[in-house]
Amino acid sequence: MQSLQEKASEWSGVATSDAFAIDETNLFESLGGIQPFIDLSTNFYTRVFEDEEEWFRSIFANSKKEDAIQNQYEFFVQRMGGPPLFSQRRGHPALIGRHKPFPVTREAAERWLHHMQLALDSTSTIDPDSKLKMMNFFRHTAYFLVAGNEMTRQTQGVVCKHAAGKPAS
Amino acid sequence: MQSLQEKASEWSGVATSDAFAIDETNLFESLGGIQPFIDLSTNFYTRVFEDEEEWFRSIFANSKKEDAIQNQYEFFVQRMGGPPLFSQRRGHPALIGRHKPFPVTREAAERWLHHMQLALDSTSTIDPDSKLKMMNFFRHTAYFLVAGNEMTRQTQGVVCKHAAGKPAS
Repeated sequence: MQSLQEKASEWSGVATSDAFAIDETNLFESLGGIQPFIDLSTNFYTRVFEDEEEWFRSIFANSKKEDAIQNQYEFFVQRMGGPPLFSQRRGHPALIGRHKPFPVTREAAERWLHHMQLALDSTSTIDPDSKLKMMNFFRHTAYFLVAGNEMTRQTQGVVCKHAAGKPAS
Repeated sequence: MQSLQEKASEWSGVATSDAFAIDETNLFESLGGIQPFIDLSTNFYTRVFEDEEEWFRSIFANSKKEDAIQNQYEFFVQRMGGPPLFSQRRGHPALIGRHKPFPVTREAAERWLHHMQLALDSTSTIDPDSKLKMMNFFRHTAYFLVAGNEMTRQTQGVVCKHAAGKPAS
């Protein structure tokens, strides 16, 4: 059986070594701290909350824009060499678990990546080389979550099948 | 609704600030590298795979001991200030997602913590202050996963209820 990591690489077209090139340098330090991450997430969610594609915009309908921005940049800061802001406030990133309520399909992953590419393009506080590394990480991670989403729903199917005769617990 | 983090703190009795005291210093550096983590995980899984409690031992029946040891110490190294060994090999930790196949009950969490406390006690390459910080992190994380497990099963219930009339996808 293919691992989540193998599926993420195959489906995204990004090799694991390219996806985790964000770890070769400390991006938080080289970008000069938190501000570029705030800029990026603000640009990203400004686009997402105004998306003309209603099916994608509606995925975020139960979130406040300010909360979505903070959750995202705190995770990015933590993952890219900065202080563990996300975990101090919300615990482990638990990416698959926290995305469970959302339909993380390939179509949704591509729409997310489309907005993220444009958000990076409009963030002048991040240099081109860092943008490339971050985009590889994002692309790989988006498909990691598509794989996680499929895994979660597959397991649900099995539980449902047996649910009538035998409780899942 | 209580967050995963709030449940983890309440159920474990470990405040968030104590759980993430592991981030106040770089434990990987202060412990002198990877060996103490290998020692700890080896001690831990040697106990687990020989547990007299069959219900707990059987949770790990589909894993190879060497793999379980490596997965664990690579995650600990990555989370406690060392190189991202786990992600380079397996992707995001995705703690809730990866624990989804397992029955992470309060009873299982306590048994896991019981073995981890004894494994720490018998690991001479880790100093007492670091042991305390690590145990607080482990206790909080164990109950974070109990909360994640309950969240996952609750959602499954909803899906099952509607499954007959409408597919989950």
